[in-house]
Amino acid sequence: MPLPKGQANCITDIEGVQVGHVTLYEKMDQENTICTGVTAILPHKGNLFKDKVHAGVAIINGYGKSAGLIQIDELGLVESPIMLTNTLSIGPVLQGTLTYMLEENQDIGDNTSTINIVVGECNDGYLNSTRLQAVKPEHAIEAIQVASDEPAQEGAVGAGKGTICFGYKGGIGTSSRVITAGGETYKVGVLVQSNFGNRDEALFADFKKKELDTPDGSIMIIIATDAPLYGRQLKRLAKRAAAGLGRTGSHIAHGSGDIAIAFSTANKHRHYADTVLESLTYIRDGHPIMNDLFLGVVEATEEAVIRSLQMAETTEGRQGRKVERAPLS
Amino acid sequence: MPLPKGQANCITDIEGVQVGHVTLYEKMDQENTICTGVTAILPHKGNLFKDKVHAGVAIINGYGKSAGLIQIDELGLVESPIMLTNTLSIGPVLQGTLTYMLEENQDIGDNTSTINIVVGECNDGYLNSTRLQAVKPEHAIEAIQVASDEPAQEGAVGAGKGTICFGYKGGIGTSSRVITAGGETYKVGVLVQSNFGNRDEALFADFKKKELDTPDGSIMIIIATDAPLYGRQLKRLAKRAAAGLGRTGSHIAHGSGDIAIAFSTANKHRHYADTVLESLTYIRDGHPIMNDLFLGVVEATEEAVIRSLQMAETTEGRQGRKVERAPLS
Amino acid sequence: MPLPKGQANCITDIEGVQVGHVTLYEKMDQENTICTGVTAILPHKGNLFKDKVHAGVAIINGYGKSAGLIQIDELGLVESPIMLTNTLSIGPVLQGTLTYMLEENQDIGDNTSTINIVVGECNDGYLNSTRLQAVKPEHAIEAIQVASDEPAQEGAVGAGKGTICFGYKGGIGTSSRVITAGGETYKVGVLVQSNFGNRDEALFADFKKKELDTPDGSIMIIIATDAPLYGRQLKRLAKRAAAGLGRTGSHIAHGSGDIAIAFSTANKHRHYADTVLESLTYIRDGHPIMNDLFLGVVEATEEAVIRSLQMAETTEGRQGRKVERAPLS
Amino acid sequence: MPLPKGQANCITDIEGVQVGHVTLYEKMDQENTICTGVTAILPHKGNLFKDKVHAGVAIINGYGKSAGLIQIDELGLVESPIMLTNTLSIGPVLQGTLTYMLEENQDIGDNTSTINIVVGECNDGYLNSTRLQAVKPEHAIEAIQVASDEPAQEGAVGAGKGTICFGYKGGIGTSSRVITAGGETYKVGVLVQSNFGNRDEALFADFKKKELDTPDGSIMIIIATDAPLYGRQLKRLAKRAAAGLGRTGSHIAHGSGDIAIAFSTANKHRHYADTVLESLTYIRDGHPIMNDLFLGVVEATEEAVIRSLQMAETTEGRQGRKVERAPLS
Repeated sequence: MPLPKGQANCITDIEGVQVGHVTLYEKMDQENTICTGVTAILPHKGNLFKDKVHAGVAIINGYGKSAGLIQIDELGLVESPIMLTNTLSIGPVLQGTLTYMLEENQDIGDNTSTINIVVGECNDGYLNSTRLQAVKPEHAIEAIQVASDEPAQEGAVGAGKGTICFGYKGGIGTSSRVITAGGETYKVGVLVQSNFGNRDEALFADFKKKELDTPDGSIMIIIATDAPLYGRQLKRLAKRAAAGLGRTGSHIAHGSGDIAIAFSTANKHRHYADTVLESLTYIRDGHPIMNDLFLGVVEATEEAVIRSLQMAETTEGRQGRKVERAPLS
Repeated sequence: MPLPKGQANCITDIEGVQVGHVTLYEKMDQENTICTGVTAILPHKGNLFKDKVHAGVAIINGYGKSAGLIQIDELGLVESPIMLTNTLSIGPVLQGTLTYMLEENQDIGDNTSTINIVVGECNDGYLNSTRLQAVKPEHAIEAIQVASDEPAQEGAVGAGKGTICFGYKGGIGTSSRVITAGGETYKVGVLVQSNFGNRDEALFADFKKKELDTPDGSIMIIIATDAPLYGRQLKRLAKRAAAGLGRTGSHIAHGSGDIAIAFSTANKHRHYADTVLESLTYIRDGHPIMNDLFLGVVEATEEAVIRSLQMAETTEGRQGRKVERAPLS
Repeated sequence: MPLPKGQANCITDIEGVQVGHVTLYEKMDQENTICTGVTAILPHKGNLFKDKVHAGVAIINGYGKSAGLIQIDELGLVESPIMLTNTLSIGPVLQGTLTYMLEENQDIGDNTSTINIVVGECNDGYLNSTRLQAVKPEHAIEAIQVASDEPAQEGAVGAGKGTICFGYKGGIGTSSRVITAGGETYKVGVLVQSNFGNRDEALFADFKKKELDTPDGSIMIIIATDAPLYGRQLKRLAKRAAAGLGRTGSHIAHGSGDIAIAFSTANKHRHYADTVLESLTYIRDGHPIMNDLFLGVVEATEEAVIRSLQMAETTEGRQGRKVERAPLS
Repeated sequence: MPLPKGQANCITDIEGVQVGHVTLYEKMDQENTICTGVTAILPHKGNLFKDKVHAGVAIINGYGKSAGLIQIDELGLVESPIMLTNTLSIGPVLQGTLTYMLEENQDIGDNTSTINIVVGECNDGYLNSTRLQAVKPEHAIEAIQVASDEPAQEGAVGAGKGTICFGYKGGIGTSSRVITAGGETYKVGVLVQSNFGNRDEALFADFKKKELDTPDGSIMIIIATDAPLYGRQLKRLAKRAAAGLGRTGSHIAHGSGDIAIAFSTANKHRHYADTVLESLTYIRDGHPIMNDLFLGVVEATEEAVIRSLQMAETTEGRQGRKVERAPLS
């Protein structure tokens, strides 16, 4: 029995979570088209460095260049916006996000520690002239600045402007689920940057066989919840995204960097504190709500992928290439 | 486009792989019923300790008590039969398998190293009086001795005698796929011990809602291939089983120990060798065959789960409990 | 500046922690000698299944057959005594410990979940006729029953009866450290089963070169603390044991199963609870006490190894072999 | 018995390995000093993307921001120079290295896959005005261009210009060992960027207690060998660096990102190949040479750390701070 969806069926259904896109699209000449972008997911509206969120990561397939994942694993925390872009733009997006965070936190790198910036990526090089490296640090800053808690734009937008999924135009998709149990209501939301699969692999539609000659892609999966959970538990949520991918038809291809990052908005870890001890309240692993949260991740991951196709539009890219909108209602 | 199935649609389609079951079933009294067993998967027909197979493991959900997995991860090898049983019988099955291997290898623990025995498990305590610990070391030995390369028996047999899947009788299921590319033909086979899920979670059938009050279960997934691969690659195959589980409807429940072990029959690692160097021939990670192997794991895992239900029969267990055969043709 | 030692310089300095040994020693004939045993470490004096302790594990080198580690990683908990024995006796020790826990908990495997038994091992096959499998389930039960919070016996005792370290008689060693900061006092204790290294590798003594022809060994490292920590943090403690090994001279040999398990006695996880939520109080990762705890692990691991030699006695084993006491004061 | 050192006691003793430094040092004003740099390690003299090297990584403590590590773990390969810099300069160094590699490989991101750039870091913010972000992409390119196989410069140079170790000036250090066995000679070399520890922790010298008020540091450890090994084995080598750190006195502090990357120059993985299969020749895990390689890593890591102090000079940094040269001969 599928879980009910959140109000906007969007990752921003989780209170405080904000999404911002910067889309770059410009036909340069016969050969080159800029068709890419940046997407920022902000876990809450406060200072992300000063009030870190608990987080976990699952490397479903490690053929990817994401930055900042190791420290999530070690400390169970995220302390920056989570940024998405194309594979060759990890550097400038990291740089721009760092600049933004340094500006907001004059103490970083001076009289407190450094900061761990999280950036994920997909290769949009079929449509985008990725070697031109059109993404600049300021685009990352802008994506953060325009982030809002309104329902996020989906499809060929932001970091999803140039990506391809199941042989059709993919991009950004999002979905959410509501879990009610024991008088408590929790939400889990997923946002994906979809860039994987061939037409004949889709399980959710009967696409025709004719294929683009696309390389293996990737998928970034960002999971937000207001359920109080910590690192180990959030890693468990992140791992469930693989089952959601399986439902869409993915076999998690060799060249597909499939990475899931999950965070909870319910407990903040304060950067500054004088105390030796701190406390955490969280859902018991053995409570049935945990299974509902897992199911929520699976369902919302599947639906976010499908929505990334549904909401996308036919897009022209470099070398006159065109990727069509999927025939989905 | 689904891959073609192997001749018997069974893990024994991979040449040399053998499966043996010992089934224990006895109604003791009003309260207690023995309803459990042991299943042995032998990677090849030779001496498994002297000629080890390359292997990899994926801990999809580590709520499980399997033995021998750590060394697979460190060395990328399996050197024993892979045994399946119920959760509380890891000890005697480990012991029986060890006795068998010591008998066959007089050098182990004397003038060569020790041996790593691999045992997986599911909790069959709903039907089986698991506290009676009916499984003895000799049952493990017998399962090894009766193993054959004939198509394996499926359903309520061996280690699957007492397990439950999607609220119906589960057990042992198996399936295989054939990959043809570049003039080469490879096979991948999967055998599962299925013990997870509620009725309303199944995606492959419209089961009615009425539920057994069963605890979270588990699934053991054994993957065999004749494609030449080594540890890191086989771990990648094992990880793809999560996508296969996702296709069946599983959300990989909290209490479900979901473990996949993959091995290749194509390269043997000889226990004794004088040389400093050894050589290995394997499929290039980037070759499209690798994606077909991944897809084969996904498809065969899904089908093996479904077959474990299709081939099972209604089974009575302890306290007069009865688990019905699934209404699948 | 080394940290101060605990009162008894023993893992039992951590309140509630108990250690029990069963030593098996019998000259059977010209060829065979039983020279082995079992050691039990009990994290507290209550019901270990009902009140689980937070725990973490580090696989420093995974050439080992330890049981129960995967679930520690998934759930961050230990729910059984931690048992040590020889490599080929994992089965009976697991079985005996299970029997003990089933007796104490009539609900396990009946109307609640199963139980995860933790067993570590070293290969004592140079001195011990390990193929005779002298360790029986009842020895595990006995080791649990005789466990006490008195200073633990060290040297050639329990699971350390037959082990060899740096070419001399090794065995059980233990040490503890006291951390005082911010008005708080915490203790960390280490117990090792030492079975690794050649004479010329020792950094803590100038052993002469003449070598036993011993195989690669192993070391089990059990770390207890009363500092309030949880799984991820305890895994970090466990990983520091590698630095302690490095100080002794170990290079963590290929065939050496080097495993560290750390637990905290400060927070219990109750098996039964009706609530959705639970709470945890723990030391902030960034507080200097954490570094002292890390240092405590390093120092106590190093000293526990040295003490396992200091406290051992010259021991005769199978085939007339004799391993001498190290020339340490 | 320590292993013999290589000819230059340097990572460049491994044939083909090259090291290049760019050092940035400029007193800006009363407040700010640029005191940082970039170090490039090139695994061989050919095209690193077209002929990838087998590699493995160990996250000894994941409080770090290194880029590119996940893909090493998944594929067991390095396909770029290994770059070192300060924590806040990961972005520009990644960007510069990418630009260099794109220039050298016109196919990347166009008609073949993207590229995984590896960048490690330490926080040199005590001496360096790291918030000024003085490192630019061109400095990364320059470090690659000036790389040579001459004995590498050590101490306060390149990425080690501003780092601090055991309370004295640290920086770049390197060391190598030679393993001879069975008629074969192999070398292992280590280069570190040292930035950890307090004075009273050093085991290799009796430093006086007076401390700098420095934050937790980090250490990057790059390991090269001409022994034929592949990913899993190289990960094992990388893990041994923790024992080398332990020998110096490190307890692997909370805030210390301790990362080891090991690669072999002996087997190349060709980016382009038509064949389904490829072959690999490598040292048997069980051969004693493997233990010598492990020991080589431990010894060379320890010595590289010590040399990073020995070769460094007293350095003045921001806010008039001065870090003295260690009193080591």
